[in-house]
Amino acid sequence: MATTTTISQVGEFPLISSMVADLAMGQAVTLGPGDDGAVFQIDGSAVVSTDVLVEEVHFRRRWSTATDVGRKAVAVNVSDIEAMGAVPVAVVVGFSAPGDLPAAWAREFMAGMASEADKAGVSVVGGDTTGGPVVSIAVTVIGQTAGMAPVRRDGAVPGDEVAVVGQLGLAGAGLVLLGRGFRSPRAAVAAQRCPEVPYGQGRVAAKAGAHAMIDVSDGLLADLGHIAEMSGFAIDIDTSKLDVAEPVRTVGMATGVDPLTWVLAGGEDHALAATFAPNTVPDGWTVIGRVLPPDQVSDPTVLVDGQAWEHERGWTHFHS
Amino acid sequence: MATTTTISQVGEFPLISSMVADLAMGQAVTLGPGDDGAVFQIDGSAVVSTDVLVEEVHFRRRWSTATDVGRKAVAVNVSDIEAMGAVPVAVVVGFSAPGDLPAAWAREFMAGMASEADKAGVSVVGGDTTGGPVVSIAVTVIGQTAGMAPVRRDGAVPGDEVAVVGQLGLAGAGLVLLGRGFRSPRAAVAAQRCPEVPYGQGRVAAKAGAHAMIDVSDGLLADLGHIAEMSGFAIDIDTSKLDVAEPVRTVGMATGVDPLTWVLAGGEDHALAATFAPNTVPDGWTVIGRVLPPDQVSDPTVLVDGQAWEHERGWTHFHS
Repeated sequence: MATTTTISQVGEFPLISSMVADLAMGQAVTLGPGDDGAVFQIDGSAVVSTDVLVEEVHFRRRWSTATDVGRKAVAVNVSDIEAMGAVPVAVVVGFSAPGDLPAAWAREFMAGMASEADKAGVSVVGGDTTGGPVVSIAVTVIGQTAGMAPVRRDGAVPGDEVAVVGQLGLAGAGLVLLGRGFRSPRAAVAAQRCPEVPYGQGRVAAKAGAHAMIDVSDGLLADLGHIAEMSGFAIDIDTSKLDVAEPVRTVGMATGVDPLTWVLAGGEDHALAATFAPNTVPDGWTVIGRVLPPDQVSDPTVLVDGQAWEHERGWTHFHS
Repeated sequence: MATTTTISQVGEFPLISSMVADLAMGQAVTLGPGDDGAVFQIDGSAVVSTDVLVEEVHFRRRWSTATDVGRKAVAVNVSDIEAMGAVPVAVVVGFSAPGDLPAAWAREFMAGMASEADKAGVSVVGGDTTGGPVVSIAVTVIGQTAGMAPVRRDGAVPGDEVAVVGQLGLAGAGLVLLGRGFRSPRAAVAAQRCPEVPYGQGRVAAKAGAHAMIDVSDGLLADLGHIAEMSGFAIDIDTSKLDVAEPVRTVGMATGVDPLTWVLAGGEDHALAATFAPNTVPDGWTVIGRVLPPDQVSDPTVLVDGQAWEHERGWTHFHS
């Protein structure tokens, strides 16, 4: 009978050592993993965000490889730093897992983190590993403002153009596919396993003078809803300007679902959505709507083609 | 029948709002919870550490109140920043829990975090809440070097005095008490529920020129072992200088265990241990041993009264 080495057999300290041994440290890092804390330089103020990924809630081991999960853990979190217009610098990870988890899974997870961290321009500087009933991953990213004011959610003003960069709808369509046992279209499945975050575009938006910004994690309508509510103005989306990617159309046809549903309400794509003064939207961003004056619509909500949206706006956890 | 409101009934967004509503932000925080990221000022370099606490691994809901767990989550983590000689600034928390967790538990947990954060001089600037099979808490603390070099584990040199500040043995003795259904001596039980971290003493040690420092989380011998190994020199502990607190003696007598076992190998007290050049140990610290020259003992290990310690040195996770 083939045997699989488990993390319980490897032991905690050797596991940590094997997981961090190959990590590359960026120039800002003056002390990497292995001490009580890691030390790195910050240019300007620090910007911090944390995200938790729990097995069977945010990912499934039978649907995603360990590498996918490691990549996703970094991607979804760096996306929040991008959404502040800041520059991501360092990542730490809290990793808990049952003792019978294959040690190879933990190592591949770490390799996935390292690979995505490299892509995102951050260093994995430390972590904590411990036991637990399921695989649970808490990633914290620290970024730096580097001379620019952070772009908040509450800065949208009437007349702003609303624009997005990155994918929309792919991860939501991919979730439906995986739930039905399909593995294609591959782009949708891949987006569910790990989103393609438009790294660097948050900074581009900040430099273009974005008034408000958010990353689209819960769904475009839900997340623009946060900007609308916190800024105190309504947003109107023009669906004719929304790009519905080919794989999303394909999944829509195969399942009888309007693909716009995933573009508007599917979460986990981690596109960036921002508002800009007219004619300041940077190259590569797509204008999809505008911020309305309060005398036109007083309720700070998100309209779709001028109408209230009667369907699902996004999803949250804990709901039955 | 009395009903308890669960976090599932409250929903994720209202839960987050109720949890963060009462948080006080320190002067360094320029943007608190509620956006994609929190923003705060850093003096010098950033120092980061993360710790995960999992129900039934690190705490039990029947042994500890939600307030205890919230306090402990902050304390054990800030302790790592102290151990670098840095100044803790901000905390983020990843909180996952089953949907049937009483909402009151989550709120009291957050109140515990806020209370300990206040004591430790840090602000809770953000977090993430999600579902999961058990209560699992990942806390990340970011500190600042504020003009002093971080105190690492690898700087001990022969002739150094080894000194500690804070409690030793109480949390370990408390764990035995709770395991047997006892609730006294209260000091030991309280230390297990939440350690009394000697806040500020890490900075005191750094200012006194400490050569190496660590927080005692796994056990004095295990943690001094990290200093010995990373510095490349042996450490000898003089047990006659170890203060065995009265409650630890009491538990020892009641259970027939040598109380020194908990002082030397009991974890979770989060005392600080450091090495200093002779005659530079700060007030309030207790000298308990010294760093040996390699011609006296070549193996970088920790001796007890000049002898190898044949018993347990501390504990790690995942072990059966």
